[in-house]
Amino acid sequence: MDKKTGQDIPDQQRLLEAREVIKPYVHRTPVLTCSTLDQITGATLFFKCENFQKGGAFKFRGASHAVMTLPQDQLSKGVATHSSGNHAQALSLAARMRGIHAHVVMPENAPRIKVAAVEQYGGNIRFCPPTLPDREATLEKVVRETGAAEIHPYNDYRIIAGQASVAAEIYEEVTRPDILLVPVGGGGLLSGSILSTRYFSPGTRVYAAEPEKADDAHQSFRQGRFVPADKPQTIADGLRTSLGSKTYPIIMEGVTDILTASEDSIACAMRLIWERMKIVVEPSAAVPLACIMDNPVPFRNTRTAIIISGGNADLMNLPWMNQAASIH
Amino acid sequence: MDKKTGQDIPDQQRLLEAREVIKPYVHRTPVLTCSTLDQITGATLFFKCENFQKGGAFKFRGASHAVMTLPQDQLSKGVATHSSGNHAQALSLAARMRGIHAHVVMPENAPRIKVAAVEQYGGNIRFCPPTLPDREATLEKVVRETGAAEIHPYNDYRIIAGQASVAAEIYEEVTRPDILLVPVGGGGLLSGSILSTRYFSPGTRVYAAEPEKADDAHQSFRQGRFVPADKPQTIADGLRTSLGSKTYPIIMEGVTDILTASEDSIACAMRLIWERMKIVVEPSAAVPLACIMDNPVPFRNTRTAIIISGGNADLMNLPWMNQAASIH
Repeated sequence: MDKKTGQDIPDQQRLLEAREVIKPYVHRTPVLTCSTLDQITGATLFFKCENFQKGGAFKFRGASHAVMTLPQDQLSKGVATHSSGNHAQALSLAARMRGIHAHVVMPENAPRIKVAAVEQYGGNIRFCPPTLPDREATLEKVVRETGAAEIHPYNDYRIIAGQASVAAEIYEEVTRPDILLVPVGGGGLLSGSILSTRYFSPGTRVYAAEPEKADDAHQSFRQGRFVPADKPQTIADGLRTSLGSKTYPIIMEGVTDILTASEDSIACAMRLIWERMKIVVEPSAAVPLACIMDNPVPFRNTRTAIIISGGNADLMNLPWMNQAASIH
Repeated sequence: MDKKTGQDIPDQQRLLEAREVIKPYVHRTPVLTCSTLDQITGATLFFKCENFQKGGAFKFRGASHAVMTLPQDQLSKGVATHSSGNHAQALSLAARMRGIHAHVVMPENAPRIKVAAVEQYGGNIRFCPPTLPDREATLEKVVRETGAAEIHPYNDYRIIAGQASVAAEIYEEVTRPDILLVPVGGGGLLSGSILSTRYFSPGTRVYAAEPEKADDAHQSFRQGRFVPADKPQTIADGLRTSLGSKTYPIIMEGVTDILTASEDSIACAMRLIWERMKIVVEPSAAVPLACIMDNPVPFRNTRTAIIISGGNADLMNLPWMNQAASIH
């Protein structure tokens, strides 16, 4: 039981309730297939396209669940978070939809494009020096001053229950896939996927996909103990975070394996998805396909569902412009 | 009546037959919407996404119709065309599906990526010097030697009947839009769209979208006589061709207006579509949205369907990397 939110690990009933709560707000995203990528991987792949989600990423599901279930007496005080990524946009958008304030602490050096996106969705930005202690201290100050409810990007059962809706939707369209492959950063999406699989497709094995250069979840799984991320340098900027205290145990119990991919393979997979599927995906969203390319054996002759986590790519800075990402 | 193919302007029955012929081969592509682009344009827009079509463009519809209706005694001799673009890929793919040869005449200086795409689909490439007379002469030679049936990229009623299926599918999902906006190069897609509109959504007005720098159709419409393209320099490489003898009269009779867009607006619209809709589209496919941005009045408060013609963009050479394409 989480004392701050009064929540426990979501059970089947809670997952179903979360889906009902967010249904009026989220897009039901399509599941796409691609015969060329099937040929390349020797698997039958189903891509759940959360790059088409509102705010451009799955993050809106968790954020809207947290915001829409906020207690009545909290509404006037709003919500708060520190994030420079998709969660900040998602929370701002969800808050605007409910007509409440979202306070977003961002580092001074956040990319202009991400600041603009949060502003566009109506978030109140508070800048701080670009270190984690500064971000946390600034967020504490904002919460103290405003009384806003802190909504953590992944270490929160309301967020996990919202992200779980991605896998639940997959299982309504793709009957009992052999494998569900999910990118892992802080583990909110992966935890939710594991819970949905337990209740809605128990025969499906859940694999996680992580950059080699941010392999804290892989190391934690291998070593059987929590290993934090150590100065991750990957282009998959959404996957640089460490697991949290609520996501770690769900993942250790429920994941079949955590695979990694090289930076070259991530860039190559991203380009393949753009070229072959004609969709814009961010580097983090290409990590699952990159993991299949780097670890093909478990996927051969399987029906594998993949979560495309988001599409907020920087169109001025594409990885294949800078490195020799040869197409396999 | 076209003496070479024995065909006439397709009537309603012919359009319905064409749809049945190609149905097992083509993707039924989705119709997407985007609230941000609705806000920017003041219209309600429906995007028919032929970038998701096989071969990455609508061209596969016409090509597969021509190939699948080829007379039995022609099969052993195959088909031929000269093209360096999407038609070459589409014809090669359709021919492979029917198990026949496709001979493709391409200029020696064709981009490596386009040559590779035709090869991948199994087309037999014959290179020639990069002038139109050379291409036509080489094609004549190939046809003489092989007996292959020439399939022109747009000036052919079988092609027009195939391309007409795009608009027909739109009208099944979007009931009676006020406007259908179609990019125009050689006019195959536009002619087919006009015919489908006449039979399946007669109240809808058909507008065409053309680059300012390749405005031969616009000039033809304004002057009431055929004006050929004069050294077109547009980034919308799919729209550099002139109208044909079969597309010109259908367009002149059926189009409400032919609008043009500047190069900056095309680059800006392309980027907006990538950023906001998270789909990969080629420059030609962004010309309709660019035309709305440059000519907003006819579209305000209308329900407008737009054909996204293709997604075969060169990912190494994106227009916003080279010019100051400011987002409006």
